[in-house]
Amino acid sequence: MPTLDPADLTLDQKAELLTGRDFGTTHPVEEAGIAPVALVDGPHGVRPPDAAADHLAINASLPATCFPPAVAVGSSWDPDVAARLGAAVAREARAYGIDVVLGPGVNIKRSPLCGRNFEYYSEDPLVAGVLGAAHVRAMQDAGVGASVKHFAANNQETDRMRVSADVDERALREIYFPAFERVVKEARPATVMSAYNRINGVYASQNPWLLTEVLRDEWGFDGLVVSDWGAIQDRVVALEAGLDLAMPHDGGRGREAVLAAVRGGTLDEAVVDRSVRRILALASAAAERNAAAGTPTEPAPGFDVDAQHALARELAAECAVLLKNDGNVLPLAAEARVAVIGAFAETPRFQGGGSSHINATRTDSALEAVRALAGDPALVGFAPGYPLDRADDVERLREEAVAIAREADVAVVFAGLAEADESEGYDRDTLDLPAAQVELIRAVSAAAPKTVVVLSNGGVVSLEGWHDDVEAVLEGWLLGQGGGSALADLLYGKANPSGRLAETIPYRLEDTPSYLNFPGEQGHVRYGEGVMVGYRHHISADRPVRYPFGHGLSYTTFATGPVTVAPVGGDGAEVTVEVTNTGTRAGKHVVQVYVATTAGPVRRPVRELRAFAKVALDPGETRSVTFALDRRAFAYWDIEQHDWVVAAGEYRVQVGDNALEVVAEERITLTGDTLVQPVTLDTPVGDWFAHPVVGPELTARLSAVMPPQSPEQAEESARMMRMVESMPMSQFRNFLGDLITTEALEELVALSKEPAPAS
Amino acid sequence: MPTLDPADLTLDQKAELLTGRDFGTTHPVEEAGIAPVALVDGPHGVRPPDAAADHLAINASLPATCFPPAVAVGSSWDPDVAARLGAAVAREARAYGIDVVLGPGVNIKRSPLCGRNFEYYSEDPLVAGVLGAAHVRAMQDAGVGASVKHFAANNQETDRMRVSADVDERALREIYFPAFERVVKEARPATVMSAYNRINGVYASQNPWLLTEVLRDEWGFDGLVVSDWGAIQDRVVALEAGLDLAMPHDGGRGREAVLAAVRGGTLDEAVVDRSVRRILALASAAAERNAAAGTPTEPAPGFDVDAQHALARELAAECAVLLKNDGNVLPLAAEARVAVIGAFAETPRFQGGGSSHINATRTDSALEAVRALAGDPALVGFAPGYPLDRADDVERLREEAVAIAREADVAVVFAGLAEADESEGYDRDTLDLPAAQVELIRAVSAAAPKTVVVLSNGGVVSLEGWHDDVEAVLEGWLLGQGGGSALADLLYGKANPSGRLAETIPYRLEDTPSYLNFPGEQGHVRYGEGVMVGYRHHISADRPVRYPFGHGLSYTTFATGPVTVAPVGGDGAEVTVEVTNTGTRAGKHVVQVYVATTAGPVRRPVRELRAFAKVALDPGETRSVTFALDRRAFAYWDIEQHDWVVAAGEYRVQVGDNALEVVAEERITLTGDTLVQPVTLDTPVGDWFAHPVVGPELTARLSAVMPPQSPEQAEESARMMRMVESMPMSQFRNFLGDLITTEALEELVALSKEPAPAS
Repeated sequence: MPTLDPADLTLDQKAELLTGRDFGTTHPVEEAGIAPVALVDGPHGVRPPDAAADHLAINASLPATCFPPAVAVGSSWDPDVAARLGAAVAREARAYGIDVVLGPGVNIKRSPLCGRNFEYYSEDPLVAGVLGAAHVRAMQDAGVGASVKHFAANNQETDRMRVSADVDERALREIYFPAFERVVKEARPATVMSAYNRINGVYASQNPWLLTEVLRDEWGFDGLVVSDWGAIQDRVVALEAGLDLAMPHDGGRGREAVLAAVRGGTLDEAVVDRSVRRILALASAAAERNAAAGTPTEPAPGFDVDAQHALARELAAECAVLLKNDGNVLPLAAEARVAVIGAFAETPRFQGGGSSHINATRTDSALEAVRALAGDPALVGFAPGYPLDRADDVERLREEAVAIAREADVAVVFAGLAEADESEGYDRDTLDLPAAQVELIRAVSAAAPKTVVVLSNGGVVSLEGWHDDVEAVLEGWLLGQGGGSALADLLYGKANPSGRLAETIPYRLEDTPSYLNFPGEQGHVRYGEGVMVGYRHHISADRPVRYPFGHGLSYTTFATGPVTVAPVGGDGAEVTVEVTNTGTRAGKHVVQVYVATTAGPVRRPVRELRAFAKVALDPGETRSVTFALDRRAFAYWDIEQHDWVVAAGEYRVQVGDNALEVVAEERITLTGDTLVQPVTLDTPVGDWFAHPVVGPELTARLSAVMPPQSPEQAEESARMMRMVESMPMSQFRNFLGDLITTEALEELVALSKEPAPAS
Repeated sequence: MPTLDPADLTLDQKAELLTGRDFGTTHPVEEAGIAPVALVDGPHGVRPPDAAADHLAINASLPATCFPPAVAVGSSWDPDVAARLGAAVAREARAYGIDVVLGPGVNIKRSPLCGRNFEYYSEDPLVAGVLGAAHVRAMQDAGVGASVKHFAANNQETDRMRVSADVDERALREIYFPAFERVVKEARPATVMSAYNRINGVYASQNPWLLTEVLRDEWGFDGLVVSDWGAIQDRVVALEAGLDLAMPHDGGRGREAVLAAVRGGTLDEAVVDRSVRRILALASAAAERNAAAGTPTEPAPGFDVDAQHALARELAAECAVLLKNDGNVLPLAAEARVAVIGAFAETPRFQGGGSSHINATRTDSALEAVRALAGDPALVGFAPGYPLDRADDVERLREEAVAIAREADVAVVFAGLAEADESEGYDRDTLDLPAAQVELIRAVSAAAPKTVVVLSNGGVVSLEGWHDDVEAVLEGWLLGQGGGSALADLLYGKANPSGRLAETIPYRLEDTPSYLNFPGEQGHVRYGEGVMVGYRHHISADRPVRYPFGHGLSYTTFATGPVTVAPVGGDGAEVTVEVTNTGTRAGKHVVQVYVATTAGPVRRPVRELRAFAKVALDPGETRSVTFALDRRAFAYWDIEQHDWVVAAGEYRVQVGDNALEVVAEERITLTGDTLVQPVTLDTPVGDWFAHPVVGPELTARLSAVMPPQSPEQAEESARMMRMVESMPMSQFRNFLGDLITTEALEELVALSKEPAPAS
């Protein structure tokens, strides 16, 4: 099918194409054979619209499998999990005739309070980027377009359609952009979704630097940019910035504005054509795939509901993080008398609210799954422990739970946040679990011989007030519709926990780096912490946390051998690490490679994750894992060079069990980039003396004419030099009197412009 | 003497006047009878240039009294101390024929590392402003002009001549400007000195918003703006911004640039005249004073050296802060056997380096003063304890000190920073005392029955590693040339400590709010903490500190009675507090009045100092202190209104012994400013519903047409409303379908513009 050219369309037709036809499809051009493109919410499942539901019921959609949301996938640290999920979502999308599934979201978790954190992978851009790229690649390989979102700096829900993320470029380049950059470069998503918010005052959807210079010119993106739903303020400004498709339908206002601008001569029709060409390319690709696949089987799901559910359960087990397991209370023995406590064991909490909310094909109850895995269902007692709605009697429920806990070998408390606590559209204002649950855990742990807490929450919750009272904590995040069974599999050791924290669990909200700058005020949120987000902050400010980024236990143990680092031309390195399963069960270890340096002119985080791999190991098995670190792994964003720069100097390549605990380390010295700048009379004196050519020459000339100094005078001169080093030479020469002439200084300026001698 | 008019001068003469004649005087206009104006460094003493010294010896100046630097005056919390100091400095300035003494510096201590913190008063703008205003008023009343500096946001020395303080307007208005504003409005300084640094990219010296809009148009400043020495990059741009006098001499480059710009038609001569008029006014005022006073007595000091020194000693005793005094080890008994330890007891550390460095007329040794106050000089032993230069044997000195400590009743260790550790021109990179001193204190405290540590330091030092080993800590800061005697007076109870911390002493550098954002990089320093500077940060993030802002002990005790708060029209309040000396010695208490609120749209510090008074009380005496809090005491800077706004709501007026310990509190409800904004279709839905007129009307109209909802549907609708509250109405109406027409919305927009009904 040949791609239609904009020249084949009238201006009216083209202007119409630039905005959606309705909530989820583009305009067709029937006379030209262009079918509508269907864009539908995701990303951890599809939300085919239920035509029967009314327009206010945004949660109404046809049944689909709810896979683990990104918060869980992030904790898997496993691109294979992300890929299998992406492919599985694509299967359902194909079955429903969906062309583009909106997602994944690769925004950085700047604050644990962000209401949409459950839709995001990590506080670290590498984890988010690797997982997002795997998801996109697999989904697109299965014939469905992706829409990586929300580009960019959409890190909160409060005032999200207006707030300006006031953030400096180094933080954007090093923290908020790299996950998008990786997905764009490695997975070539069909679309990128622009964010609602402003960045440094300019709407992301109307930002030519963001949507054209960075995204297309620098990263080579050649797909389509779609707005977040309702993000467009000015259709013409957005179009010029590089925003191709505005969604959803806007009553024709955007089309009228574009037509008026072209006809009025203020908008170049070539700009219209540029975006129309991208929309036609998207439609054409979708049409080709649809033609190849035949008619979709809407509305009956044309997918294997059972197989998809089984996959959802399997993937979920890869995601949960075993935070604590004192005395190996887990896994549970089949013959243990278990008190299952907590309403979430029966009524699972497995997804968040908002546009990603899936009408799940079914849901697994952890209670049922535990009963199925126990040696005898009669060994398993149950008490809800806390109310799901306010009508119930908290105290009675707690006492009932304590009573069954007292009779058990181990109590397993299912705790977490209610679905209404976390959603798209608003942020949380606390990390606390509901008080009734905290009281329940304390009461149960006082009564039970052993207590395990299983958490279900999309955003980080505080463990304070009860953490030290319980033997084990299994952080389940939100695990999708198979989560109940997956948790039971993990509790009984049918699956071995292998998740690692993709975000720090702090002691207190007050300890998080954005605490006093979140969610901002009067239309602005100051990213005052710069690049010091998440673990980068905690380790750089030496602030203790409850559990560090990267932490997670297993039912087996792992040892890390020495690390070897070999330089690779162009400031890269090859890193090899040996890991061994030193325990008695098969398990998966996540090898985490960090880089640490103080080289260069900018404040670096104490260490930064630069590579990772999840490795399956049988008991006693040793494997050697090799990582290629390219120059970006050592670079920082230089705001003066407007580019990535590798500073000359020493770097430590560190293998960590988490961001705090380094278990192996090797040093490497990099040549780095040569950035000797010529001096001018405006250059500070300190830079003159530090210049490799000018400095020695200037010192020699001054020494030749200076009167001899006593040791005391020399010390005083040295101190004075320290005082004036930030003074421009043009000022400093006033202090030098006759010691050096303006002509001599100009000679030195000229000298500094000569090419550096080869070293 | 009539003021000369610019019209009487040629353009050449005028252009010449705009830049200094040399390092410290303006150009005369001899044919018009205009004498040069002499501007000389201060502010805690004068630095008349020593004509005999060479131009590189910036520390060479004629003798003057070194009064306590601002770090000490700040800790006095006593405007009377600042005023007596200002008047005394003026006496010496008059004697030397100095017209303007440069200072005081009222910059905020953003980081304890700033090398020039010893020249600044406080981390709090009220303390800095009140003391700065008292200093200026007294100095000018004594016939010498002041130059309040460095305007503005000059909070570090690193890269000071180029770095851009990237800081949002609310932080400027609430933290970095108010001390300048108070000095300008209350004390009318002859000159304001612009800072070296840039603010949000624009040099302070070339910043029309700063130097004209804020300083003159808003605050009513009618004096002269002088550049910091060598701060001017572009004389014409600076002139247009409102920078009247560029200092020092620049080889004629500035004059040439001004002439060329006027002749080339790019600079209005009226701009030249504006600044010339201010320079002539300054010169005229100086000439009048000089004519009245007769010929100055240069070079022999025409002031009473002994009386000035006695005053320096007296003022110093008002400034030191008694941090700790376990078991009332202080004051020392006359009959106690005292081991004085530490080289600073013999060779006092009393001032910082750089342009404020005074050639002191004499210096008091604490050791001599202690011997004079002890019942018998033979009771006092001495050991230097640590070397003042590297040649000495650290271990031998320590052992010698321990030996005399063992034989004494009490060891008094004089510790602190070397003069080279802190200076104008560079910042510190640690809060640590020298390791040799820390080891000395630990060794001495292990040997002596009781240990007192006396600190001499211009910037905060860490007390960790030894604080818990000693009984008492007297923080002397830098006390000027009478400091040695003043410390002895305090140790023996001849003076009663009355200083309070004007800056927080943290546990660790890492705990300070600017830690990861200081001193910035690549020409920029991000003020990421916003208004949360100093105690505002520590109390708002609930971060523990070693000693809070406002802390200080006395040899007597004080009790605070209940506080009464009476509203005063226009959102002000009158606050009355009773304080009683409950001990047995006369002493001074600092009543600290804080205001706390969560009202309004911005994040407020947990509490902020809004008034204070130092009160002298005899044993058993009670005094009632009244404070007038104006509306500014309750206001925040609103970036949308571009003005101070008092939010409607509840405020707590708190009297604190320091920023952490509230001892009395009263609540007050303020009407506040009415800021109801009309809605538009771009206004977020949440603001429509929150509008006092539009909200109820919109709700009523929707209820009338909505189908009845089940409780579950109503709950779902409420949740959905929460999700969309940040959506502009123009977008949201797409979701509302036929429920409300565009015409109805426009009626509501019109309704919102009607004046609010009187309440």
